[in-house]
Amino acid sequence: MASLEERIRNLRKGALVLSLSSDDTRRNALIAVADALLSRKDEIKAANAADIERAKEKGVQPALLHRLAFTDDKIASAVKGLRELSSLPDPVGRVREKRELDPGFVLEKMTFPIGVIAMIFEARPDALVQIAGLALRSGNAVVLKGGSEAEASNRVLVEIIREATAPYINAEWILGIESHADVSAMLRLDKDIDLVIPRGSNSFVRYVMDHTHIPVIGHSDGICSVYVDAFADIDMAVRIAVDSKVQYPAACNAVETILVHKDAAPAFLPRLGEAFKAEGVLIHGDDETRKHIPGAVAASEADFHTEFLGLECAVKVVSSIEEAICHIAEHGSHHTDAIVTMSEESRKLFFRSVDSADVFCNCSTRFADGFRFGLGAEVGISTSKIHARGPVGLDGLMTTKWLLSGNGEIVSDYSGPDGKPFHHKELPHA
Amino acid sequence: MASLEERIRNLRKGALVLSLSSDDTRRNALIAVADALLSRKDEIKAANAADIERAKEKGVQPALLHRLAFTDDKIASAVKGLRELSSLPDPVGRVREKRELDPGFVLEKMTFPIGVIAMIFEARPDALVQIAGLALRSGNAVVLKGGSEAEASNRVLVEIIREATAPYINAEWILGIESHADVSAMLRLDKDIDLVIPRGSNSFVRYVMDHTHIPVIGHSDGICSVYVDAFADIDMAVRIAVDSKVQYPAACNAVETILVHKDAAPAFLPRLGEAFKAEGVLIHGDDETRKHIPGAVAASEADFHTEFLGLECAVKVVSSIEEAICHIAEHGSHHTDAIVTMSEESRKLFFRSVDSADVFCNCSTRFADGFRFGLGAEVGISTSKIHARGPVGLDGLMTTKWLLSGNGEIVSDYSGPDGKPFHHKELPHA
Repeated sequence: MASLEERIRNLRKGALVLSLSSDDTRRNALIAVADALLSRKDEIKAANAADIERAKEKGVQPALLHRLAFTDDKIASAVKGLRELSSLPDPVGRVREKRELDPGFVLEKMTFPIGVIAMIFEARPDALVQIAGLALRSGNAVVLKGGSEAEASNRVLVEIIREATAPYINAEWILGIESHADVSAMLRLDKDIDLVIPRGSNSFVRYVMDHTHIPVIGHSDGICSVYVDAFADIDMAVRIAVDSKVQYPAACNAVETILVHKDAAPAFLPRLGEAFKAEGVLIHGDDETRKHIPGAVAASEADFHTEFLGLECAVKVVSSIEEAICHIAEHGSHHTDAIVTMSEESRKLFFRSVDSADVFCNCSTRFADGFRFGLGAEVGISTSKIHARGPVGLDGLMTTKWLLSGNGEIVSDYSGPDGKPFHHKELPHA
Repeated sequence: MASLEERIRNLRKGALVLSLSSDDTRRNALIAVADALLSRKDEIKAANAADIERAKEKGVQPALLHRLAFTDDKIASAVKGLRELSSLPDPVGRVREKRELDPGFVLEKMTFPIGVIAMIFEARPDALVQIAGLALRSGNAVVLKGGSEAEASNRVLVEIIREATAPYINAEWILGIESHADVSAMLRLDKDIDLVIPRGSNSFVRYVMDHTHIPVIGHSDGICSVYVDAFADIDMAVRIAVDSKVQYPAACNAVETILVHKDAAPAFLPRLGEAFKAEGVLIHGDDETRKHIPGAVAASEADFHTEFLGLECAVKVVSSIEEAICHIAEHGSHHTDAIVTMSEESRKLFFRSVDSADVFCNCSTRFADGFRFGLGAEVGISTSKIHARGPVGLDGLMTTKWLLSGNGEIVSDYSGPDGKPFHHKELPHA
């Protein structure tokens, strides 16, 4: 058995083969995976049942069991997702810029797969299928580390994907790893892995960022806010606050802090108090908030830095939109922040001033998602300012190459006082 | 005097002010800097003369003295560069994608300054002006560390730029640092600095990459190659090889390795031998090369991993284009690689298979440069696969925000079996 280092190094060849493969090859490989998931469903379900049995014995929480279960519905949905991915336009070889430097001397900036990408994610077998599918569609080799509770399911799925794609991709392009020791070893291989995309708890993502020199995209905290402006439609604000908090409270794009303009507070806060009470949401309110919502507990400063990941929310009254923007800059995590307002001026100021991956107006923070954004799917949400920011879909898995085609041009001819000038003419491109 | 940490943290406010400033404000600030460089030329030249005096006492090499000197010509050229930057279209607030998720529910991906960028560069006062200009045009605050030989010039230039822009940018946005201790301290401030762009020796760039958790773009090695195909025009190949090697041998985009198809070797190599002899270039050749160029010394394996940065070159005969591509994958540094060929098939294969920031056909490797590419100017050349790759101009200093404007949409309405579908309609954008 080859060492982990050798197996990871070996993926470089898979990345090369994938980068040279045609659109049709990668599409057919995706469809082969979709077919294999259905034809080998019994193996998948047996492995998944073993994982669930083990998790129950360990006494894991119901929410985790729910995510862990790879039911018929979820398998069907994963298969559908792969078929949809196969029908998306090829992300490889797209021309992003085209410019003539001089007549017949043409520069193009073209998309190209990144190479070898490591992805670390929670115990969700459907996530493994989606992530492997995105990698295959985008021509990247992958190292996959799923949550250990799904170990047996992950192992079977990687095997099925490898076997289904072998007739199309004549090299190892997918590798599953299982132990924390493997993750630690992998994070040291900065020559062999081009990008790490970790998902998971704040502390885990922070650990990855602090223990590797491989570029990392992802997010640690998801401290999202909704600011209810002086010019908000109060009905809309309540609906958005409730959806942002309760539609899926454990998601990174769920709201944790609600900021309310003092002029909107008397109308909005009692309504919010009732709605949150009905949904079982505990409010941590500042003094001003508690005047309008007697059931709220007193908020500490720490509450405004907390990702509750459950039915709790911090609420604060602010005296201006500027105070809200400053609060978000100081307390937020640059993930997703929304304003509710009917004022075009407030919307514009908020959009310009809030420096987050996703800045919304008059809609739920929960829309921050690659599928909802129309990216096909996502491998994660990045709060990095570098490379991909926000939901990361196929585009985020691509790099670019500059391709320059000439007829014998040399720099000497373009240098010095008598050198030829460049004409730098932009050309149309697809 | 505030501590370095406080002064760097303070730049966050400058970044915010810059990000909110209008295009006109940033353009006028650039023009004010250009004017101030001319009106305060005597101060600049006095400081520069002191730097040169000190460097001469230390006995630095003539090439460094040449780069260090901020002559009237170079000042005029820096001023011209700033005026050109001010006339480039605003890189802030450009819409890169626009999509309707549902009628009236519109998503935009918009460019936005990254924030606080640290740039480390060689002892060239003109580089400081160019880099500060790119930062200002793109709305980013900067920490600048120029080569210590230019310390007095750097200090005066940062002061002039700060004073000239103060009437336009009402916050500290530019900070010069000087000592290695300051650089080490800065590299630890991953919360306060969003991106580091180091230029300099391989070992220095590698040091930066290994000692920070701030994202880094740049390149360490510049091992560029020219492959002379079986179907090359031999005259053109000689001209390109000579220009790629001798036009500026110390540049990162100068050629270090020449690969020659065996069918082209008998015609090409004797001509290369003569041309390189005339230019004083020492050839490290493999056995096959030395049959055609008796004056070549025997190449070691290490020569093909070496960035000579001077008048030396490694030359090897290969038996196929595939062998050339594999050689580049194994020995190159993914910076700039060129093929010389009249075969469209060879060009296409090379363009697809070579995974470098810049892949060229029938032109000199020396064209790998932001100005020549038409990017206005460059802060450096990146071999990273993440974010900007190749010459990094204004675009590379931008991140994006997703802006989503709705009318009260909530995710609950789009969820579950009866949920509304998204229609994901692409919209035209500027």
